[in-house]
Amino acid sequence: MKKGCAFGTHRVIEPKGKLPQPATKIDNNMDIYDNEILINVQTLNIDSASFTQIKEQAGGDVEKIKEIMKGIVAERGKHQNPVTGSGGMLIGTIEKIGPAMEGKTDLKVGDKIATLVSLSLTPLRIDEILEVRKDIDQVDIKGKAILFESGIYAVLPNDIPENLALSVLDVAGAPAQTAKLVKPGDTVVIIGGTGKSGMLCLYEAKKRAGVTGKVICLGHSEDAMKRVRSANLADIYIQADATNAVEVMEKISEATNGEMADITINNVNVSNTEMGSILATKDDGLVYFFSMATSFTKAALGAEGVGKDVTMIVGNGYTKGHAEISLQILRESETLRKLYEELYA
Amino acid sequence: MKKGCAFGTHRVIEPKGKLPQPATKIDNNMDIYDNEILINVQTLNIDSASFTQIKEQAGGDVEKIKEIMKGIVAERGKHQNPVTGSGGMLIGTIEKIGPAMEGKTDLKVGDKIATLVSLSLTPLRIDEILEVRKDIDQVDIKGKAILFESGIYAVLPNDIPENLALSVLDVAGAPAQTAKLVKPGDTVVIIGGTGKSGMLCLYEAKKRAGVTGKVICLGHSEDAMKRVRSANLADIYIQADATNAVEVMEKISEATNGEMADITINNVNVSNTEMGSILATKDDGLVYFFSMATSFTKAALGAEGVGKDVTMIVGNGYTKGHAEISLQILRESETLRKLYEELYA
Repeated sequence: MKKGCAFGTHRVIEPKGKLPQPATKIDNNMDIYDNEILINVQTLNIDSASFTQIKEQAGGDVEKIKEIMKGIVAERGKHQNPVTGSGGMLIGTIEKIGPAMEGKTDLKVGDKIATLVSLSLTPLRIDEILEVRKDIDQVDIKGKAILFESGIYAVLPNDIPENLALSVLDVAGAPAQTAKLVKPGDTVVIIGGTGKSGMLCLYEAKKRAGVTGKVICLGHSEDAMKRVRSANLADIYIQADATNAVEVMEKISEATNGEMADITINNVNVSNTEMGSILATKDDGLVYFFSMATSFTKAALGAEGVGKDVTMIVGNGYTKGHAEISLQILRESETLRKLYEELYA
Repeated sequence: MKKGCAFGTHRVIEPKGKLPQPATKIDNNMDIYDNEILINVQTLNIDSASFTQIKEQAGGDVEKIKEIMKGIVAERGKHQNPVTGSGGMLIGTIEKIGPAMEGKTDLKVGDKIATLVSLSLTPLRIDEILEVRKDIDQVDIKGKAILFESGIYAVLPNDIPENLALSVLDVAGAPAQTAKLVKPGDTVVIIGGTGKSGMLCLYEAKKRAGVTGKVICLGHSEDAMKRVRSANLADIYIQADATNAVEVMEKISEATNGEMADITINNVNVSNTEMGSILATKDDGLVYFFSMATSFTKAALGAEGVGKDVTMIVGNGYTKGHAEISLQILRESETLRKLYEELYA
């Protein structure tokens, strides 16, 4: 049996020596290498930007959508949309585990998992497309996929419906990082606290900061704020425009008697919220940027410009135990579970 | 006397409520507010991108350069190049200190300082341009400037020539952050270790990691590597292309017996070095991106894609004591002082 690289470089056909994600073509032959895991695929969850593009290109026609999707996989060996560059995730059942993975993984043949690593780097073969669910970006297929040794995944739990679990796993990194960062007594500001990942962060922040801490939800929409307030997810609720740095600073100053936040977590997928996050935070505090709209240079030069000695962290979608931490929230909080069923499942 | 905001929002004319940096026009009247410091300006160090643009626009003509510079300040109240958006720094002497700053600053009237906050947010008045030194982006003027309460600066030392001090202060954040992060016994990789900030980082890393640590210099140019090697700045020297993530990973793996780095510091101003930095680092390790060419999304999605649980930090040009830490290097290391005199002063 052939020995594979943990990151899957052994599958890269073009250009040689690159990683599977930036590669334009990877090998989707389903004979596994010694450290690979073979998955019998049930459903593809296509990334929303990618699926929107495919639907448009197909003029909404289901047969054309199928054709485009099969074309992408035939061309690249993976479902990476050539226009958007993005992938998605998949659900399937473990079919075979390479011998080199023994003792390195808890997975067993027959386990049902969701891969949390992007389809943009996952070797995939589509034998047949069974159903296209256009409104929720899901496509049922007959086919196989490969999980690399470094590939992250979550075993789907028995006590949480599949769609509900998926909606939480999609943003699992944010609440898990929150859980690891927040200490008892901390003042925590969650910017974009009313959104999908923001609410999970609020829940974890409140749990970890405890009765001596203070958790502040900063949001924009009045309706969403009402929802979060009725779910009692924070200690203080502030309605503000996160792109207005001075407004954010003044409102957080008022809410903290001028002390500002120990930790600010930015979840809002909107540009120009770096300065508000920095100014909401005290010197020696920490800013965690989970928003993909974050500009590296705006954050770096912004902090220097106002002489703020804050540690700024680039959101990493993966941290050990992130799937378990986020699924556990749905078990602990009846309120959040209902909210997520209503809004996202 | 009028009370000012620490960040200088009281000086913003257009658009109201913004911070001085994104503002298009700020008030450069030199009657100070209670928390401001008035500087008698001697020299402007124009940001290199900005000065190149101005020289081109002027066709290299000194009188036209003067005209363009005066025009910018007349229009905006600060020397923020409208094309590049960038500023620079200045050298001058303290002329007046607002009463609200008493006990908040160590500065005295007559101190000679370099401002380390950008000219793109500093209120400036130019009375006369005395000399344009085209080859080193420096312009001597008669004029005044304002330092806000949050503005960072360094008192110029008596024992280090001005130009040499400036060349180090320009990149002071990187070695100071290195000094704070590296602990005895750490394995540290400095990507771009042969450059202006990279060499200072190497020096600090070796000092802090000590005899039980291991400092690895990764560079591209053979000549620069020879220079760093002869100055004995690292324990291990690796020539590699930082944009080739797999090559970087394999070479660092070989140099560390597969253990990889505790801390990787990226100083190389080249795109697509995020993955190499991430793969050079062990799980639970730390990647410090000091390079302004860093892409936030490439770092965030890259780490997730390979399932690496590393903490990634956005380089903050400011940290407490950064000027003192970096100037001290020139006092401690005769070798580095000579190298910097040769290359940058």
